[in-house]
Amino acid sequence: MTTVQSTAAETTATDEETVLVHHERGVAVITLNRPQVLNAVTRSMAVAYAAALREADADPDVRAIVVTGAGRGFCAGADLGVLRQGADAIRDFIPATEDLPDLALRLRKPVIAAINGPVAGIGFAYMLGSDIRYASRTASISTSFARLGLVAEYGTSWLLPRVIGTQHALDLLLSGRTIDAGEAARIGLVHQVTEPEELLARAVDHAADLAAHCSPASLAAIKSQVWGDLERPRAEALDHTLALMNASFGGDDLAEALAARAEKRTPGFAPLPPR
Amino acid sequence: MTTVQSTAAETTATDEETVLVHHERGVAVITLNRPQVLNAVTRSMAVAYAAALREADADPDVRAIVVTGAGRGFCAGADLGVLRQGADAIRDFIPATEDLPDLALRLRKPVIAAINGPVAGIGFAYMLGSDIRYASRTASISTSFARLGLVAEYGTSWLLPRVIGTQHALDLLLSGRTIDAGEAARIGLVHQVTEPEELLARAVDHAADLAAHCSPASLAAIKSQVWGDLERPRAEALDHTLALMNASFGGDDLAEALAARAEKRTPGFAPLPPR
Amino acid sequence: MTTVQSTAAETTATDEETVLVHHERGVAVITLNRPQVLNAVTRSMAVAYAAALREADADPDVRAIVVTGAGRGFCAGADLGVLRQGADAIRDFIPATEDLPDLALRLRKPVIAAINGPVAGIGFAYMLGSDIRYASRTASISTSFARLGLVAEYGTSWLLPRVIGTQHALDLLLSGRTIDAGEAARIGLVHQVTEPEELLARAVDHAADLAAHCSPASLAAIKSQVWGDLERPRAEALDHTLALMNASFGGDDLAEALAARAEKRTPGFAPLPPR
Repeated sequence: MTTVQSTAAETTATDEETVLVHHERGVAVITLNRPQVLNAVTRSMAVAYAAALREADADPDVRAIVVTGAGRGFCAGADLGVLRQGADAIRDFIPATEDLPDLALRLRKPVIAAINGPVAGIGFAYMLGSDIRYASRTASISTSFARLGLVAEYGTSWLLPRVIGTQHALDLLLSGRTIDAGEAARIGLVHQVTEPEELLARAVDHAADLAAHCSPASLAAIKSQVWGDLERPRAEALDHTLALMNASFGGDDLAEALAARAEKRTPGFAPLPPR
Repeated sequence: MTTVQSTAAETTATDEETVLVHHERGVAVITLNRPQVLNAVTRSMAVAYAAALREADADPDVRAIVVTGAGRGFCAGADLGVLRQGADAIRDFIPATEDLPDLALRLRKPVIAAINGPVAGIGFAYMLGSDIRYASRTASISTSFARLGLVAEYGTSWLLPRVIGTQHALDLLLSGRTIDAGEAARIGLVHQVTEPEELLARAVDHAADLAAHCSPASLAAIKSQVWGDLERPRAEALDHTLALMNASFGGDDLAEALAARAEKRTPGFAPLPPR
Repeated sequence: MTTVQSTAAETTATDEETVLVHHERGVAVITLNRPQVLNAVTRSMAVAYAAALREADADPDVRAIVVTGAGRGFCAGADLGVLRQGADAIRDFIPATEDLPDLALRLRKPVIAAINGPVAGIGFAYMLGSDIRYASRTASISTSFARLGLVAEYGTSWLLPRVIGTQHALDLLLSGRTIDAGEAARIGLVHQVTEPEELLARAVDHAADLAAHCSPASLAAIKSQVWGDLERPRAEALDHTLALMNASFGGDDLAEALAARAEKRTPGFAPLPPR
């Protein structure tokens, strides 16, 4: 697994440096920031990343989220320094349940991943927890688990077949082989492939379009419906939807959308309340 | 959302005019018929459309169903006149549960959609309720909901991920953006793209092939198995299948299929009983 | 349905001849062997095939399995001789539950299908029970059921939508039409299409790569996770995964993988115990 082998240097970094955040056009851009080790994950970095996601989700000024990696990589997996310290150290590394990589799909706001380079292990799980994925032409993606004597970690065995079907999911998880961005797009794992220098701009443009034109309340409802309905029987999902529909019809957002349309202007939807 | 904005004129039409039906080669072709507003839906049209579907499903002479739109559009969503009258009017518009857009997948007979132009909102739900979709090269497809301050309506959040996977479903439902027929085919939302002038013939040919060569009892069983097994555990689905298999082995259809094969002729399967 | 029609000759064969097995590089290659009838299935052949799968799964020297057909076909369905004898003969033909075509996905070891020619009926179910599928450019694939007055047999209505989504699944199951290898690859039913003369080598290479580089315990865990998580709620799947992860961290396989990496050699993972 080249991607993790290349995490040669193991540095320490303070919490505030391992994850960077900036805001533009209603979008929080969260960057994994241990570029010297392809953003390999330490416990403190996992905690900082989860905190950054939660903060963006709570902030009324943020309407969509982009996650990416600093330097040449997206996230090469758990830091090899952790893995080499043995079972107890690894168990200590595992983030608390509320900080696990599926946190992104439990948020109220859309999360778009911009995959700028190698992805493996827990990095694969971080990537897969996003709602929509862009990848640089130079990205490389691997689950890695089977080649390390590990299992399909962090819920990837639940999530991956629901994104790309069982055959492709079994292929990637059983083999741990590395695929390039083109193959990832062909099997539906990434939404779009871009030139490396355009990647972040394209992902942020996508997020900014959601922030500018879509109701934050709609985005929250829809995200929750799609992920939740994967576990609901059809009739129950329909009842749930009808209740949400009924509530939406008297809402300010529909009135604003219709007024904006009549006045040929962009609607100004209210932000989500903080939480 | 151009598709609904273009429903400028709001006309009334009598029930018998809003939906047209004709029969050919064992196929009922049901046409949404408010072409002056891209077949935007009124309450009476929704009721007439559901009645036409149920009538085709009950008719022993019908073995497969095609749905399409008159004029330039397939279905641009709920009539803007309804939306502008406020919450109570919209609530009155919502079809009764038995008439909701998922009716098509609850029928016994295959439903093939021929998407001839813009699709949005409830039109998206009508399209998605079909079993198989053809689209004209000139079709354009949008969920629209998030741009109107609405939620993923009519069970689309349950259904769409099961057709095209979670990533593409989240993209279309969160953004409300408009995709063309080519993208719809690439992500698996439509089965085939045709030239506009060939669309209806291709969809009807597909339906007529099912009508001519497949057992109506098999079609009904298989349609019910596929939609039902999405909600069954694997072991339970297998038991259900084995019971259906056991019943089919003594049936007239298998005997007829084998006799036809031996005699090198097309089998003549019995129609479904009316209901 | 040309594929089964061509099963003109009906021969008997002894059990030991209807299924062939050989081993290479940690891979058991199981070959359906009634080439004179495109490997149409008799009861004794179904039993022999299931026994061969179970034996390979139990054998510590086998780490992955390839299934293919002798001669021009993969498996053209149930032997027409059986179908022509009527309901009781067909009921006697149905393999016992533990021998049904979904056996392959209940095994501990990866199963790769090499589709060398026509596939139909129970042959379709055998193919679909595998984890990953290669197809020769000359393969042709049909469910066939609806054209014979039968239902979606052997759990295919549960499995197929989870591999290729509901629309493609409904198309193939309702129509019983025959698709070629190219279309099968486009809709995600097969992983890769090869030239006929390269098919078996490519499938065995894939299996041998898993045998050489992936932990057998990881392969067993991951296969069970993916198939099992299709039926688990997300939170339950995550708990299940975390328990498996926790066990894996103290295991010999991770230690061996890290040691091999440090020493720049291929890891030597322990085989699965016999069962």
